[in-house]
Amino acid sequence: MKRIGVIGDAVCSEKIMGLAEEVGREIAKRKGVLICGGLTGVMEGAARGAKKEGGLTIGIIPSESADDANPFIDIPIVTGLRDARNVIVVRSSEAIIAIQGKYGTLSEIAFALKFKVPVIGLHTWDITQDIIIASNAVDAVDKAFNLIQC
Amino acid sequence: MKRIGVIGDAVCSEKIMGLAEEVGREIAKRKGVLICGGLTGVMEGAARGAKKEGGLTIGIIPSESADDANPFIDIPIVTGLRDARNVIVVRSSEAIIAIQGKYGTLSEIAFALKFKVPVIGLHTWDITQDIIIASNAVDAVDKAFNLIQC
Amino acid sequence: MKRIGVIGDAVCSEKIMGLAEEVGREIAKRKGVLICGGLTGVMEGAARGAKKEGGLTIGIIPSESADDANPFIDIPIVTGLRDARNVIVVRSSEAIIAIQGKYGTLSEIAFALKFKVPVIGLHTWDITQDIIIASNAVDAVDKAFNLIQC
Amino acid sequence: MKRIGVIGDAVCSEKIMGLAEEVGREIAKRKGVLICGGLTGVMEGAARGAKKEGGLTIGIIPSESADDANPFIDIPIVTGLRDARNVIVVRSSEAIIAIQGKYGTLSEIAFALKFKVPVIGLHTWDITQDIIIASNAVDAVDKAFNLIQC
Repeated sequence: MKRIGVIGDAVCSEKIMGLAEEVGREIAKRKGVLICGGLTGVMEGAARGAKKEGGLTIGIIPSESADDANPFIDIPIVTGLRDARNVIVVRSSEAIIAIQGKYGTLSEIAFALKFKVPVIGLHTWDITQDIIIASNAVDAVDKAFNLIQC
Repeated sequence: MKRIGVIGDAVCSEKIMGLAEEVGREIAKRKGVLICGGLTGVMEGAARGAKKEGGLTIGIIPSESADDANPFIDIPIVTGLRDARNVIVVRSSEAIIAIQGKYGTLSEIAFALKFKVPVIGLHTWDITQDIIIASNAVDAVDKAFNLIQC
Repeated sequence: MKRIGVIGDAVCSEKIMGLAEEVGREIAKRKGVLICGGLTGVMEGAARGAKKEGGLTIGIIPSESADDANPFIDIPIVTGLRDARNVIVVRSSEAIIAIQGKYGTLSEIAFALKFKVPVIGLHTWDITQDIIIASNAVDAVDKAFNLIQC
Repeated sequence: MKRIGVIGDAVCSEKIMGLAEEVGREIAKRKGVLICGGLTGVMEGAARGAKKEGGLTIGIIPSESADDANPFIDIPIVTGLRDARNVIVVRSSEAIIAIQGKYGTLSEIAFALKFKVPVIGLHTWDITQDIIIASNAVDAVDKAFNLIQC
């Protein structure tokens, strides 16, 4: 099972949440496991999408309680590490899809680029050519799976 | 899916590894997810057992590489945190089964008791009556599931 | 500067806090740096003692705020890692003095023994002969410094 | 004692190392404590500068060994957490001075901006107006101290 990380903000517009949901769906259709931060916003959108296609969802939770996971997380990994859990989201993923996002997302993009985990971007931080720009959800997930197979 | 942690040493006798395997089997038979440290010894025995019954196995890896997971881990959670990952093994489990073990296992037992995660012991540290002693693998897993349902 | 860790519970009796203070004093008299968890109880007693002798005190804080340090901490190291910060207290110390303590302290003792950091015990967990028993504060600190020099 | 973090790459030019040294000096002159990652490059330059002015230097070490600290670190805080220690460098600092840097530095800048720790930049990532640009070492340290006092 390929592990695809989806990162983005816990607070986002309906439109971005819909995009995250589509990304989650596409990951599950290709039998990928969704890795995410387990909370609301982009994380919840992606997990909801993955579950609609019968996928498996992992949430790396920053708090001490599995109850903080959104309802679409199958397996909460409870860290209690607050933002240091961002490193685990990145290290556990074979490719990362970044959807918009603020400074927390930027920290994850930076770690991914440092660790040589491929980063595919959808409306996210435009700070380096090392981020592979995708035009839509299907394109992003296609690129993620292709980069793992390489 | 109930999440059951199995903890113990990375180096152990064949007998202890067999016991871990039986524990892993029993967890999978009851549709539990196995949480473990993902490496060799007791962790590998438990994961092998779970896979023989078609269960799902999660390994919380201390190093920076998913390749360090034993071959029976479905989903490596890669932390790079070394021994600090012990906290995550414990927090992510709804009950812990400790099989023998040395000081690393003792640290996990201590965290579990602090966090009020039930600890079931098989030939492990006998340091407090807060550890629930089991007589064999079936008994340990039965006790773990019963304690979660309570 | 030798780094001596003092570990124990955040809630303790006046007597134990007095013992911690004496340990802190003795560390500072020998020009050691006190490493501790930075909170109340044994941690505060030790830091208060060290400051009375003009020593330097480091608190490895579990929360996200330096304001959670007790008033005798010179330098709060703010982790946000909750109990995972116990690993840092242990790894940063060249010897550990354990004063009484509950399960959190037990986790630190276990890590110290795993990492081969010498552990000196004062009224603490009596679980292995690898813990060096001290008869009082002066004896504990003498033993800690002697073990580092060896 | 004000805690000023200095971040930047472990590999850098002589010129950047000299700039880091000047920043370290200026921090020590103002009686600040230097917080850094404890390794080579910018971290070593800053620590060397601080020691030349008799300052105190703390290194938050990613590995399991205090021996990995550069020779100008007074107190190694040994984490074993690899890149997750970046969070601790940021949280422990009241202001951050970023000198050039690659993706590791970017992760720290992102965390600082998320946690509302002021970031002063010297030839570093130009990605948001939330980073306060300084023209030289003295200016950077002045700005850092001023922002803490506000």
